[in-house]
Amino acid sequence: MASIGIVTPQRMHFATPLPLQSGATISDYSLVYETYGTLNTARSNAVLVCHALNASHHVAGVYADQPKNVGWWDNMVGPGKPLDTDRFFVIGVNNLGSCFGSTGPMDPDPATGKPYGAAFPVVTVEDWVQAQARLADALGIVQFAAVMGGSLGGMQALAWSTLYPKRLRHCVVIASTAKLSAQNIAFNDVARQAILSDPDFHGGDFYAHGVVPKSGLRVARMVGHITYLSDTVMADKFGRKLRDTGNDGYQFGFGVDFEVESYLRYQGDKFAQYFDANTYLLVTKALDYFDPARAFGGDLTQALATTEAKFLLASFSTDWRFSPECSREIVAALVANRRAVTYAEIDAPHGHDAFLLDDPRYLALLRAYYDRVWGELETPAAGAAGRVEAPAAAKEAA
Amino acid sequence: MASIGIVTPQRMHFATPLPLQSGATISDYSLVYETYGTLNTARSNAVLVCHALNASHHVAGVYADQPKNVGWWDNMVGPGKPLDTDRFFVIGVNNLGSCFGSTGPMDPDPATGKPYGAAFPVVTVEDWVQAQARLADALGIVQFAAVMGGSLGGMQALAWSTLYPKRLRHCVVIASTAKLSAQNIAFNDVARQAILSDPDFHGGDFYAHGVVPKSGLRVARMVGHITYLSDTVMADKFGRKLRDTGNDGYQFGFGVDFEVESYLRYQGDKFAQYFDANTYLLVTKALDYFDPARAFGGDLTQALATTEAKFLLASFSTDWRFSPECSREIVAALVANRRAVTYAEIDAPHGHDAFLLDDPRYLALLRAYYDRVWGELETPAAGAAGRVEAPAAAKEAA
Repeated sequence: MASIGIVTPQRMHFATPLPLQSGATISDYSLVYETYGTLNTARSNAVLVCHALNASHHVAGVYADQPKNVGWWDNMVGPGKPLDTDRFFVIGVNNLGSCFGSTGPMDPDPATGKPYGAAFPVVTVEDWVQAQARLADALGIVQFAAVMGGSLGGMQALAWSTLYPKRLRHCVVIASTAKLSAQNIAFNDVARQAILSDPDFHGGDFYAHGVVPKSGLRVARMVGHITYLSDTVMADKFGRKLRDTGNDGYQFGFGVDFEVESYLRYQGDKFAQYFDANTYLLVTKALDYFDPARAFGGDLTQALATTEAKFLLASFSTDWRFSPECSREIVAALVANRRAVTYAEIDAPHGHDAFLLDDPRYLALLRAYYDRVWGELETPAAGAAGRVEAPAAAKEAA
Repeated sequence: MASIGIVTPQRMHFATPLPLQSGATISDYSLVYETYGTLNTARSNAVLVCHALNASHHVAGVYADQPKNVGWWDNMVGPGKPLDTDRFFVIGVNNLGSCFGSTGPMDPDPATGKPYGAAFPVVTVEDWVQAQARLADALGIVQFAAVMGGSLGGMQALAWSTLYPKRLRHCVVIASTAKLSAQNIAFNDVARQAILSDPDFHGGDFYAHGVVPKSGLRVARMVGHITYLSDTVMADKFGRKLRDTGNDGYQFGFGVDFEVESYLRYQGDKFAQYFDANTYLLVTKALDYFDPARAFGGDLTQALATTEAKFLLASFSTDWRFSPECSREIVAALVANRRAVTYAEIDAPHGHDAFLLDDPRYLALLRAYYDRVWGELETPAAGAAGRVEAPAAAKEAA
C-alpha cells in the first residue's frame, strides 16, 4: 500500500475567545491541521484523528520539502490502509498548547506581546475537544463518521462521545484509559519536576534567554519512554547487551555501558531538540486531569450515559501504562449503558507503543471496523460510494 | 517484642589496599558497622545483614542521642524477632562508597587530600563482599550462620555464596535478582542522568562548591520510589485523591494537585537532604553491573555451581522491580545444582518495599527459617544454646 504521498498542513484562525475548563479564556488562536481524502457531498465521511502526547496534526504522508518526515500514523491512514483515505476524509489537528503550529506557549501572548511561556493557560482534553469542534464547524462537518485516537488521543475521542454525542457515529479508543492511575500521575510528575527544576527552564520563560531546558526534557522523555515499552520488549531488544565499544567489558564509570542506556539517552536528546518544555508540562497535566467520571462521583457508567456513538476499543496485553484493565473498565461502563461496543485485547509484546506499530491483527481489526463504518455510510439508494445522503442523526444534530 | 534498644556504631580501619573489580585499588579505608547480640565461643552464630540502595549498617535499634532513628530492619532483627538477637550475633555493615560512615566519595582522597567526589572508584557487589570478608576476618568470624539481604542486599548474599562458599551455612536472598533487566537499568540511568545533569553536581565536586545537587537527587528518588511500590498499593494509598487544600478542584497549574505528587515530592526532598549524589551513582552502577552468570556466558546454573550454602529465597507477588520470576530463576539454577533451597512467593500488595514491611506470613517464614538455622547450630553434645562447637565446615574453612 502506498503512502498518501505529499500533504500540506493548513492553518485556521479563530477570533472568538475560547473559554477553558480552568476558567481562563484564550482570546484568539489558530489550529494547524491536515486533511487526507475527499469530503463527500453529504459531509458524512469525515474521521477526526486525535493525537497523543508528542505527536501532531501530521498523521499521514510526507511534506514536499521533508520527504522523510512521515506522519505518525501512516501505517493506519492512507489509500487502501485500515482507515482508507479513498473512502474517508481524514482530519489530523494539532492541539492547543502544542508546539507544532497551533497556538502554544512559544507564541506571543496578546496581553504582553511576549511568548506565553508558563502563562499559557492549562488546557484539558475537554478544551481540546471544544477547539476541535470549532474546526469541524468551520469545515462544515456536523457529524464525524468516527473520532479516533490512541492513548491521550483516545481520551479525546472518549470526550467527544460525551460532550458532543450526536457529532460522531463511531468512537475509536485505542490503548487508552478513562483516567490515569496514581502511578501514571507519579511518572508524569517526575517528568514535570525534571523540567521545572532545570535552571534553563527559567520559570517557563526560556525563550527570552535563548536557551532550552534540554536536561529536563531529556530526563522527562527517558522516563516516559520506559513506560511506553514493555519489560519484555526491552528485554528482547536490549537485554543486558553492552554498547559496542570494541570493549566487551564494563566501563566502570558513568558513561554508557548498556545498549538500553545509549538508546534512551539518544531518544531523550532527540526529543529535547524538537519538543517544547512548556508544552510537555501542559500535555502531562491534560493527561492527569482527564477523568470524565469525576463529575459523577467516580461513576463511569453515569459519565458515559449520554453517549450515542458506537464504540471500538482496543488494548494491548503488555501495555502497562494503560493496561487492558483500563479499557475493560470503559467497555463495562458502555455495556452497562447498552451501547454497541466492540472490544479487542491484542496479545502484543510491544507495550503501550503497540498502538503505533504494524501488528497485523491490530491493523486487520481496524480495517474490519472501518469497513463496517463505511458500510453504514452507504445507503442502497445513494449508489456510488462517497455520494451518500447525510445520515438522519447528522441532520438532527445540525 | 521489644526493640534491641540503644546501639552504637563502630568503625574499623583497613590499611591494606583493596583491589577492586574495575582494576582500581582503594589504598586505605574504614567500614562502619553495628553488632547486635553476642558472638558465641564457637563463633558460629554470626549473621551478616547486607543493606540495599539507601540503607546502612543501622539495621536495628536506636541511637542514644537519636531515639527516633530506628534501624531499617528493626522488625526483623532483635530479641525475640525473626532474626533473634538472643540467639544470633548480627552484623550490619555500611558498604564502601556509601554516605553513612564507611569510606565514600565525600571522604578525602589520599592522593589529593580533597574529597574523592566523582574520583571515588566504581565499586561492585563483589567488591563489597571482599570488604565485608575482611571485616569478618577482623571479627574472627570464619563462617557465618547466614548472610542475608533484601534487594541489593540479596545480591551481596548471593555473591557471598559464590565467592566464599565455605564461609556461610545459609544464604538468605529476599526480593532480589541475579541480574537487572533492561527496564531496571533504564530506570537507574534516568536517575543518574537527573543527577549528572544537575548544574549543582559540578562533575561530582559539589562539596567544594558548598552545594548539593538536590534537584537531581529528588528526581532520582521520585522515579526510584515509584518502582518500589506496586501500582495496586499506589492506587489504594493515593488513587486520584487531591491534596487537601480546602479546594476540592484542580489547581490548573504545575503545583501539587494530587496526593501522590505531594508524597513523592516530599520523599524526594527528604532523600536529597541526607543522601550523597556520588553514592547514588555508585550504588546504581553496582546494581547494574551485578550479573554472576556473565562470566559463564549467561549460564546462572554454572555460576552457582560452586555454592555450598543452603538457601532461602523469598519474593513478593506485586514486586515489579525484582519480580518473583527473578527469584524463580535463581531457585531453578540452585535446584539444577542440587542445592537445598527453600522458596516462598508471598502474595503481598506492597511491591518491592514489602521486604521491609510487617507482613505476618513473611516474618513467620523468616522466623521459621532462622529456627532451623539455630537448630542446626545446636549439637546434642553441646547442651546450652550459644555454646556449641564450631561446625566442621567452619573448621575446614579456617
